[in-house]
Amino acid sequence: MDKPVTVIWPITKYVAGELQQLKDEVVTEFPLTIKLDREEFATIVCTPTDLEDMVIGFLASEGIIRSLSELHCLSIDDSRGIAEVELVNKQSTAKDWVNKRFIGSCCGKSRQFYYHNDARTAKTIPVGSAMVTAEQCLELMRQLQQASPEFQSTGGVHNAALCDNEGMLTTRTDIGRHNALDKIYGYCIRKHIPLKGKIITFSGRVSSEVLLKIAKIGAGIILSKSAPTQLALQLADELGITVVGFIRGQSFNIYTHPERIHG
Amino acid sequence: MDKPVTVIWPITKYVAGELQQLKDEVVTEFPLTIKLDREEFATIVCTPTDLEDMVIGFLASEGIIRSLSELHCLSIDDSRGIAEVELVNKQSTAKDWVNKRFIGSCCGKSRQFYYHNDARTAKTIPVGSAMVTAEQCLELMRQLQQASPEFQSTGGVHNAALCDNEGMLTTRTDIGRHNALDKIYGYCIRKHIPLKGKIITFSGRVSSEVLLKIAKIGAGIILSKSAPTQLALQLADELGITVVGFIRGQSFNIYTHPERIHG
Repeated sequence: MDKPVTVIWPITKYVAGELQQLKDEVVTEFPLTIKLDREEFATIVCTPTDLEDMVIGFLASEGIIRSLSELHCLSIDDSRGIAEVELVNKQSTAKDWVNKRFIGSCCGKSRQFYYHNDARTAKTIPVGSAMVTAEQCLELMRQLQQASPEFQSTGGVHNAALCDNEGMLTTRTDIGRHNALDKIYGYCIRKHIPLKGKIITFSGRVSSEVLLKIAKIGAGIILSKSAPTQLALQLADELGITVVGFIRGQSFNIYTHPERIHG
Repeated sequence: MDKPVTVIWPITKYVAGELQQLKDEVVTEFPLTIKLDREEFATIVCTPTDLEDMVIGFLASEGIIRSLSELHCLSIDDSRGIAEVELVNKQSTAKDWVNKRFIGSCCGKSRQFYYHNDARTAKTIPVGSAMVTAEQCLELMRQLQQASPEFQSTGGVHNAALCDNEGMLTTRTDIGRHNALDKIYGYCIRKHIPLKGKIITFSGRVSSEVLLKIAKIGAGIILSKSAPTQLALQLADELGITVVGFIRGQSFNIYTHPERIHG
């Protein structure tokens, strides 16, 4: 990949009444159009790194593929911003299902909002699938923040890390919260990584879409620096996922399934 | 609207080695499906306030309508989460254009990434259309932050305000950055507010999609608490929009068209 993740931009800086001409570092955005069996499927505006992971993770998130074996080929032309995907079995139905709304009682407890593809791909996580100490929660968030030089210099990206209770296994960065998670998901699929006992550490807010992505990936714990939404918490409660939010300094909040966090 | 914007959720709070059972306030998310001439068009997950503004702003952003007169009727059933929209003239072509990628030299200077509907609806803002002092930039951001009780209690929402150099005219809040801006756009369309001399103050990051939305709304200045991306700055440079970022305390950065900000 030759595309830069950040570039230098001339700015006028104002500090307490004074204007100065300076240079600042800003993150790039890269529009990548995914073609599925030669048809335009989606355009994702992303940070131009780990594009293969992102495309694989996106297709898995959307329920188009479940494993690498369903992918016949994937080629990325980053000068044109095109990812060409061919599936082993042409799945026209999967494409038609994308974005079709689906309201069901598929999770048992209550009437929930899902989408067709979410119901097909979100997994319920068994209790006891991952355990972590309070100190590890704080430490994993510190590691995530140290692992992202782009964030520290530009303030413009989100980070996600795949972890277990030994530490961070890999991190991915993107201007898009969903893309950062898709890059982690694609990495897991590409490397055939078992998700049992895994933890996702994340810089962004935990919305319902983020939570569903965690459920699809199959991780039992999400650690976030930010706030969750109510719909995300309802889904997490039903799907058996532990949501830990507002991890800052020496404190955090456990919102669902606190049995996985021990002193 | 009866839907709550926040709800109370029981949490386990960890502070420096101690666990406590507390209650926390979390923001809600509400999936709203927009039907256009009885066909499913999009599902937006949003904060359940100002839904009419959001639907109108979304349709205008997508290039489906340009003014209120193109809307035959709009009815929102918030118990089912459905917005039914009927247009005066059925526009099947507009629907087909959505998400189709379009690379053109429509802005004069360089090859840029746009989308069909963006090229149809983004406006170039004439120089001198709005002017603001450095002190007003700081003051408008302070007002935006004070105007959002939800953000202060939950940390989970974005805010956008329509301003002129007298102060804030209206604010809108949403868990989605785009939705907050669509709610402002819809308000302007619904109230026939002239955009000349207007400023948007925004809590979120200025991505290319946010910048294109500002261009469609027709405001000349965007003031943000956060970072811009490079693609957003290229578009701002070409479309004549002043981007001010990282407005915090007594300082900020002017990234494009500094001629609109005076001491």
